[in-house]
Amino acid sequence: MATQGRVITCKAAVAWEPSKPLTIEDVQVAPPQAGEVRVKILYTALCHTDAYTWSGQDPEGLFPCILGHEAAGVVESVGEGVTEVQPGDHVIPCYQAECRECKFCKSGKTNLCGKVRSATGVGVMLSDRKSRFSINGKPIYHFMGTSTFSQYTVVHDVSVAKIDPKAPLEKVCLLGCGVPTGLGAVWNTAKVEPGSNVAIFGLGTIGLAVAEGAKAAGASRIIGIDLNSKKFDIAKNFGVTEFINPKDHEKPIQQVIVDLTDGGVDYSFECIGNVSVMRSALECCHKGWGTSIIVGVAGSGQEISTRPFQLVTGRVWKGTAFGGFKSRSQVPMLVDKYMKKEIKIDEYITHKLTLAEINQAFDLLHEGGCLRCVLAVDV
Amino acid sequence: MATQGRVITCKAAVAWEPSKPLTIEDVQVAPPQAGEVRVKILYTALCHTDAYTWSGQDPEGLFPCILGHEAAGVVESVGEGVTEVQPGDHVIPCYQAECRECKFCKSGKTNLCGKVRSATGVGVMLSDRKSRFSINGKPIYHFMGTSTFSQYTVVHDVSVAKIDPKAPLEKVCLLGCGVPTGLGAVWNTAKVEPGSNVAIFGLGTIGLAVAEGAKAAGASRIIGIDLNSKKFDIAKNFGVTEFINPKDHEKPIQQVIVDLTDGGVDYSFECIGNVSVMRSALECCHKGWGTSIIVGVAGSGQEISTRPFQLVTGRVWKGTAFGGFKSRSQVPMLVDKYMKKEIKIDEYITHKLTLAEINQAFDLLHEGGCLRCVLAVDV
Ligand SMILES: NC(=O)c1ccc[n+]([C@@H]2O[C@H](COP(=O)([O-])OP(=O)(O)OC[C@H]3O[C@@H](n4cnc5c(N)ncnc54)[C@H](O)[C@@H]3O)[C@@H](O)[C@H]2O)c1
Ligand SMILES: NC(=O)c1ccc[n+]([C@@H]2O[C@H](COP(=O)([O-])OP(=O)(O)OC[C@H]3O[C@@H](n4cnc5c(N)ncnc54)[C@H](O)[C@@H]3O)[C@@H](O)[C@H]2O)c1
Ligand SMILES: [Zn+2]
Ligand SMILES: [Zn+2]
Ligand SMILES: [Zn+2]
Ligand SMILES: [Zn+2]
Repeated sequence: MATQGRVITCKAAVAWEPSKPLTIEDVQVAPPQAGEVRVKILYTALCHTDAYTWSGQDPEGLFPCILGHEAAGVVESVGEGVTEVQPGDHVIPCYQAECRECKFCKSGKTNLCGKVRSATGVGVMLSDRKSRFSINGKPIYHFMGTSTFSQYTVVHDVSVAKIDPKAPLEKVCLLGCGVPTGLGAVWNTAKVEPGSNVAIFGLGTIGLAVAEGAKAAGASRIIGIDLNSKKFDIAKNFGVTEFINPKDHEKPIQQVIVDLTDGGVDYSFECIGNVSVMRSALECCHKGWGTSIIVGVAGSGQEISTRPFQLVTGRVWKGTAFGGFKSRSQVPMLVDKYMKKEIKIDEYITHKLTLAEINQAFDLLHEGGCLRCVLAVDV
Repeated sequence: MATQGRVITCKAAVAWEPSKPLTIEDVQVAPPQAGEVRVKILYTALCHTDAYTWSGQDPEGLFPCILGHEAAGVVESVGEGVTEVQPGDHVIPCYQAECRECKFCKSGKTNLCGKVRSATGVGVMLSDRKSRFSINGKPIYHFMGTSTFSQYTVVHDVSVAKIDPKAPLEKVCLLGCGVPTGLGAVWNTAKVEPGSNVAIFGLGTIGLAVAEGAKAAGASRIIGIDLNSKKFDIAKNFGVTEFINPKDHEKPIQQVIVDLTDGGVDYSFECIGNVSVMRSALECCHKGWGTSIIVGVAGSGQEISTRPFQLVTGRVWKGTAFGGFKSRSQVPMLVDKYMKKEIKIDEYITHKLTLAEINQAFDLLHEGGCLRCVLAVDV
């Protein structure tokens, strides 16, 4: 391609300061260095992690930066030594890398690769610990190793999943974060068995994907808990069989669920990011075996607590990141499942806008009616 | 036997009030009713749970009562319908029942049987919700469904494990609580694999049994943590390979362990009952897979806490009761292992006294040099 090896100037949404509206800028994107891939982003969705860092609450947030981590695009060019993708490949950038070589990847016990984290955690690329983004020579930080709110981005080769070129990018971009997180929390982290009772706290995209995963796993009762009763209608389509609004009860929600299920559920999932709900989610689990999975991301410094007796009597407390999926290996498999209509994606997309309308998309994120808003980037 | 069907008057150590010395009394022990077994106790050890209830800190403690739950004896007589044991059988009373019929027993996921708990939790027998112990007509409460500080006790048939009659009762009495708890925490709850790194907080009987279990499971590094450096010498004999006294370090103990193990241990065990140590035990685990097991019993009302990020990044928080062993099925198997010299017991017994000396035994429990003190009951 004509752009290969050259700096590309393109449009990107830049977050200059916490909670100040993003602005669309002309950004210079340097060519990929060894082990890097430059990707033309076509579609990106927004997730709460973007909003969290943008809000300034994330103590590790760095500004100015280019946010975004749920996207799909096409490889524009690759740096030296990159063998697994080539220009023209359709890809999903992955904030969880998968190098297949580090202690984590080799353990067979986790999807949390350690290879590039020391760089992606501080907004730079690993090889020279510098950013590939700049505006008139001033560097702009990367975000989560993905920075998809840009027409072009540079990612590490261990952070890019090559997918079926027939898959619609405006849909499968959702497989970059939210949907796999929910499905994987059920399939990989909890390993829900047929006949299980499940409680899901929070019925946003993550909670609904948990419901979908639980239904696919053969759960009998799927109890959805949300403060917003409007969530119930849509939740039914994802497999939720019963709905509880904590506002309708005097008793603590964990007690309501224990009473309803003859002792508690087999599995519970916290999909909100609220530490007091995390406690309820643990305590609504059945004595002896109930397992609670923390999926929501709590504000920095916040802590969970419970009586240790809850664990001594057999409950298990776990968490999940990206649903335990190995990104490069398993995201392509999820794309295939979507193509075979085994998992939903379209149903999570409630809004479509363009990159220029990104601030509006952030506003939508806080509205009850929005699940995922997909932005067309290349306009 | 001549005593069958009759009230037996025998010696028992009665706890009349919290933290008042126990007194040896002549106690009337009623005959076993349907589904009950009267056992002549020959040897009993003391455990911290006895001391905890005796101290008055246990909000569910009832007085006057007969404490004790780590013992061995011989069946004197059985009530109607009891088929699995008969007079003369050698047995270990089990505070964890195993009915094989309740939801818990049938789940295949837990050893916490629910059959008699509603009675044993309030110091009575299930059939008539009354005590079988009395002194001149005044009832004395049962404790943990075992009450082994008595020459005769009555237990539910689901709470008694029949063992090899050749096993020395003055040794295998320890299989009633402490030793199985530690071994089972490793084998059943954590399922430690060969080559694992393990940290053990607290090197009393429970912690040493964890070490023994970890060694048998093939752990490579077994790090023992105790405030009492004298514990190290004995701990070596149980498999501990490294010793850390938190007093020797400025840094939080979890940081010391993370530094020492290139990121943390694969498994940790809290064997003290201290909620702040429980947090350290979780946080010294390796990101991605480290699993922490709470074995120690904390004071009532105390809570554990941590940042949810610890779990979202792959650590798992669990607990264990009686090491996850199914009592009636598996205690006899542990007795056999001892007979085949596959597990230690003798090494945990540091003191031997008689029932009459029980207050001295309680004092020993708080001394660093004591692991288990076994009381001869039938003297
Ligand atoms: N662990 C991971 O890898 C990972 C990945 C993506 C997102 N997340 C996190 O998952 C969480 C959920 O994401 P989402 O996109 O579904 O969010 P969302 O805001 O769309 O959904 C949250 C839902 O929770 C409900 N809610 C809020 N407070 C509640 C309460 N106290 N009780 C009951 N319901 C309540 C809201 O009404 C809403 O329906 C966020 O914290 C996000 O950061 C985690
Ligand atoms: N979960 C169960 O089923 C079960 C069964 C039996 C006992 N327990 C509990 O296990 C715990 C241990 O029992 P044990 O008989 O081994 O007790 P123990 O008192 O003999 O041993 C405790 C050890 O911890 C050490 N210690 C105390 N505070 C410490 C600290 N802050 N840091 C490091 N070390 C510290 C002491 O020096 C001692 O060596 C108790 O809480 C007991 O109630 C649980
Ligand atoms: Zn996300
Ligand atoms: Zn890796
Ligand atoms: Zn005990
Ligand atoms: Zn049972």
